Order: sequence, then C-alpha cells, then structure tokens
Amino acid sequence: MAVYTEVTDEALRAFLSEYAIGALVAFRGIAEGVENSNYALKTDAGDFILTLYERRVDPEELPYFLGLMDHMAARGLSCPVPVKGRDGRALRELAERPAAICTFLPGVWPRRVRVEHCGPLGDALAAMHDAAADFPMRRPNTLGPAGWAPLLDRCRGGAEPVPGLVAELDAALAGILSDWPSALPLGQIHADLFPDNVFFMGANGGPPVVSGLIDFYFACTDLLAYDVAVCLNAWCFEPDLAFNVTKARALLGAYRARRPLTQAEIAALPVLCRGAAIRFALTRLFDWANTPAGALVTRKDPMEYVRRLRFHLAATGPEAYGI
Amino acid sequence: MAVYTEVTDEALRAFLSEYAIGALVAFRGIAEGVENSNYALKTDAGDFILTLYERRVDPEELPYFLGLMDHMAARGLSCPVPVKGRDGRALRELAERPAAICTFLPGVWPRRVRVEHCGPLGDALAAMHDAAADFPMRRPNTLGPAGWAPLLDRCRGGAEPVPGLVAELDAALAGILSDWPSALPLGQIHADLFPDNVFFMGANGGPPVVSGLIDFYFACTDLLAYDVAVCLNAWCFEPDLAFNVTKARALLGAYRARRPLTQAEIAALPVLCRGAAIRFALTRLFDWANTPAGALVTRKDPMEYVRRLRFHLAATGPEAYGI
Repeated sequence: MAVYTEVTDEALRAFLSEYAIGALVAFRGIAEGVENSNYALKTDAGDFILTLYERRVDPEELPYFLGLMDHMAARGLSCPVPVKGRDGRALRELAERPAAICTFLPGVWPRRVRVEHCGPLGDALAAMHDAAADFPMRRPNTLGPAGWAPLLDRCRGGAEPVPGLVAELDAALAGILSDWPSALPLGQIHADLFPDNVFFMGANGGPPVVSGLIDFYFACTDLLAYDVAVCLNAWCFEPDLAFNVTKARALLGAYRARRPLTQAEIAALPVLCRGAAIRFALTRLFDWANTPAGALVTRKDPMEYVRRLRFHLAATGPEAYGI
Repeated sequence: MAVYTEVTDEALRAFLSEYAIGALVAFRGIAEGVENSNYALKTDAGDFILTLYERRVDPEELPYFLGLMDHMAARGLSCPVPVKGRDGRALRELAERPAAICTFLPGVWPRRVRVEHCGPLGDALAAMHDAAADFPMRRPNTLGPAGWAPLLDRCRGGAEPVPGLVAELDAALAGILSDWPSALPLGQIHADLFPDNVFFMGANGGPPVVSGLIDFYFACTDLLAYDVAVCLNAWCFEPDLAFNVTKARALLGAYRARRPLTQAEIAALPVLCRGAAIRFALTRLFDWANTPAGALVTRKDPMEYVRRLRFHLAATGPEAYGI
C-alpha cells in the first residue's frame, strides 16, 4: 500500500488553508505508488493528489522533480502540475514530511499492455523528452551505470533465487559497462516509465490515447535513448517474457516520428536495453535478498528482468527491436 | 493495502457498459479497507467506489449487505448506495469476483478523535439503527458471543503477547457469557463503527458534522446496545488507553436524544462493553498468533483491547460511562 503517514484532519485543514484551492470535500489514501504516501484530495474546486515524501526521497532533490513537472506542463505535457500555495511555494511540509499537492490526471493505466498502447506510449515519451529539453536543472541518475556494480556487490553472499545468478550478472555487467555509449544525446529522462505510470483514455471502442504521465521521482539527467530502452523492457515483453517485436516497432516508430533517433542511438539500443534490464534485475535482487523469507509482502521476481537481459544479450543488433 | 485484484481495462470497460453511469474518466486503487479490493472510479457523471469482494466475504451474504445500504439510504441515511446496472442488479461479477459499484461519499475520517466528533457519531449511530429498523433480512453476528469461545480456543497453545493472556481472557469470557443479556432490543447493527468508517465534514472552524457511514461488511442482526458498546470502545479511549468519560457522555447523550436506551440496555452497558472489548482482543490475538514473526505487515496489538477490557471489568455500573 502507499500510505505510510497518517494526517490528522486539523493538520490537513491548516495545510489546505495555505492554498486557494477551495474547501475540503474528501481525502482518501491511494493504493498506488510505493515510495511515498499518496492521497486523493477532493475540494469543491476539483480533484488533486497530495503526496507526502517518505524517507527514500531526498528532500534536496524535490525542487528538481517539482520543477521538472512544472516546466513540462508549461510546455503542454500532460503530467501532474505542482499547485502553489498563496505564497507561491509548491513544496511545503505536512506531518513532519515534505509535501506537495499536484493536479489530478484523468485516465487509467493499462493492466494488460496491448500493441495499441505502444505507439501512443512512444509518442508520449518523445513528447516528454521534447518538453523537458530546455529544463535547466540537472540530477544524476543514482540508479545508472555507475551505481550498478556497487548494487551488485551488496547482493553478494546473500540468497540467490537461482544458483549462479550473481556470477551471471557479473559477466553481463562487465560487458554492459565496457560497451556503454558515452556520446549520445542527453536530457531529462523519466527512467521508470512502466505501465502504471502512464494513463490512457479512449472512447468506447476507439484506440487508447495517452492522457498523462505520472511519478517523476526517478527522473534524472541521462541518455534519452536509455529511457526508450527502459520502455522496451517494460512494455514489449509478454507475460511469458517472450519479446513482442510488433510492440517494439510501434513504440519506436511513434517515438522516432516525434524525435528522430540518431544512428549512434539506434546502434546502442541493444546495450542500452541490457543496461535497463540489469538495472531492474539488480534492484529487485537487492530487495529479494533483503526481504525476510516469511514476509507477507510480494517480492518482485528479479528473474523477470534476468530473462529480459538474456534476450538482449542474444540480440545481434538493433534489428532485434524491429528497426 | 486494499487492492488484491487487478482489473484489466477491457474487463472494466465491459463491466461499466452494463451501467448507465457515464464514460470512464479515472480508476485508482484505494488504500483503505482491509477485506476487499476498493477502487475510486470517476466517470463523466461523478465519483463512485467499485468494490471487488475477496475471499473473506461470503458471496451468499452480499444481498444482505447491499440490501441494507440500499434500505437505509432510502430512509435518508448517508451511506454508500449500491448502483444498479441497466438490468436492475447491483451485485455483479468482475475479474471472477462478486463486485458492486456504490456511490461516493464526501468527507474525511478523523485520524485523531476529539470530543466534538463523539456527539455527531452517537447521533449517526442512532440514525443508522432507526433507518434499518424495518429492514426485513437477518444476518447472525458471526463474531458475536457464540463465536468468542471457539475463537479463543483457536488461540490456545500459540504465542501470547503477554504470558497468561489466554488464561486472563478465559476468566473474563466466562463472566461475560454468564452475564450476557438476552432480552434487549434487536436490530441491524454496524458492528465495526471505528473512526475510519465515519466521514465528517465541517466548515472552517465549525464543528464536525457526520457526512456518512461506510463499510457495512460486518453488519448483522444483534443487540442495538452492543453497537453502542463497540463505539464506546472504539471512540472513547485516548491513545494512552485512558477512558475519556467526556467523550462517552457526548456519544451516549446524542445517541439517546435520537433513540432512548431502555433501563435494561443501560444496566447492561458494562457487560456489553466487556463483550465488545473481548471481541476485538480475540480477533487481534488470533491474527497475532497466526502472523509470522518476521512479517512486514503490522499486527494490530491485542493488548490495546485487553486493556480496554480491564477498564470495563473494573466498571461498577453504567455510571462509569457517564450515565
């Protein structure tokens, strides 16, 4: 669940009095998002999301995240817009935590990805990259290539879901780091654009249309094509982990129609996909090795990303992705 | 969290096509409620709650719960109203589970109960009892007195949070069952009217006003005054578990102003309060004894209700509750 901090009604009312967003109508915890406490907030002026930033978010980084959303929304991207209080500040404090109210986005995230979602997703990703292009702040990717070897080191000596997995990841990581491209276009990337972060709308029977992107709390400044690689991993594998090249073609085609990929970016796709796969395999393996065996929480299976990694290792070139 | 079942967008759209409640705008999991999967559903006609009934709810009992809400709402109680599909049915199926859509209630539940909440709560409880008075269905209280000894038996031989606790509960239960009243007024009771099931609204600075009652999935046919005793336990103890007689006086005064308690009900309050305290102590103890020690879920502390029970055991008569 995603409510770690309870807010008393007195504290909530005092907090809301700093805003000009109308009178409180309802306030419910939201079960989505795993890092922060999120509440659906309804006032007589409309719907909002109130987020309390929990300990896994560095408060020093919040101006980057909120500023990025503000910047992209001003350039027409549909994403949550931080709402400013009467004093002009969007980042405030509630229940002893940093807190912000953002606008509510309509739409539904796809529980089962179809090919028809992948084109609109690719287009929306390119639109995000374009909207953020002139955002002046920088944030390093703390879960980027420089972080992968230390993360793998922290998984050594612990439980392995499959014997020999750490050794397999050692070998794959050495190859990824030696092949990693250094001169590709940089920009602000989402870095976690999984299906639950993309809302769609669609008239009855009509094709799905992206209504907005959410959860920019992994956003950072990194290779734009790496964001494409994250999406290829997150959107283009079937539940049985077979790669669906039709989805990849739809995603890449729509992305390239709005933001053309350079030849160097295209050539780098296989290693970028390997990197994206090992990034999610490593964080899942770390959580897996650090969650008690009897715990009732669902541990996400690292093998789902190890199997994606093996697909990318076998890819002989960008043509594996339909290019 | 309270989303156990994911619903694909195709299944959701097909489900919604059975209703005349407008086009889907948004669909988010709600973090509240522990027994079922709850979603906030927004259409262009308004806000709704979609509930998927999980395995702890007996499908045979759903017509009682939904019928009770429908009945009380028709008599003016503010509670979720089951929305009927085009065919007149409110109880349907989604994702292989029984499912229903209810109206959305405005309001915020009090994270910290103040005296000013307790009068409106007492009045709302009496209003619920009145609104349900002529509801024709019956449902036995599966967590009532007849269930307590078997529940305690299932806690024997397991871990005890405090040594000797089971023996203490054995002695208390024997007294409760021998003193249990048999001839008090019966009716439909909520049986779980904790603060998170009561929504309040209040203009800035004004007193809190109940905007609605929710979660009738423990409702049953039992002693009306037992519902009062549940509320005395749930609303009138401070965080340090001291009994707050001012809160009790406010709760009872407002309840009695709408529905007078008989002399027999007043005389029975201490044993009813002991019964309500042992009911929650027992279900918590059972969960406590049956949750792995290393689990990451929060086990509710049975001692919070054992300590309430001790207060009620020391009560010499109804005057302990401000009467």
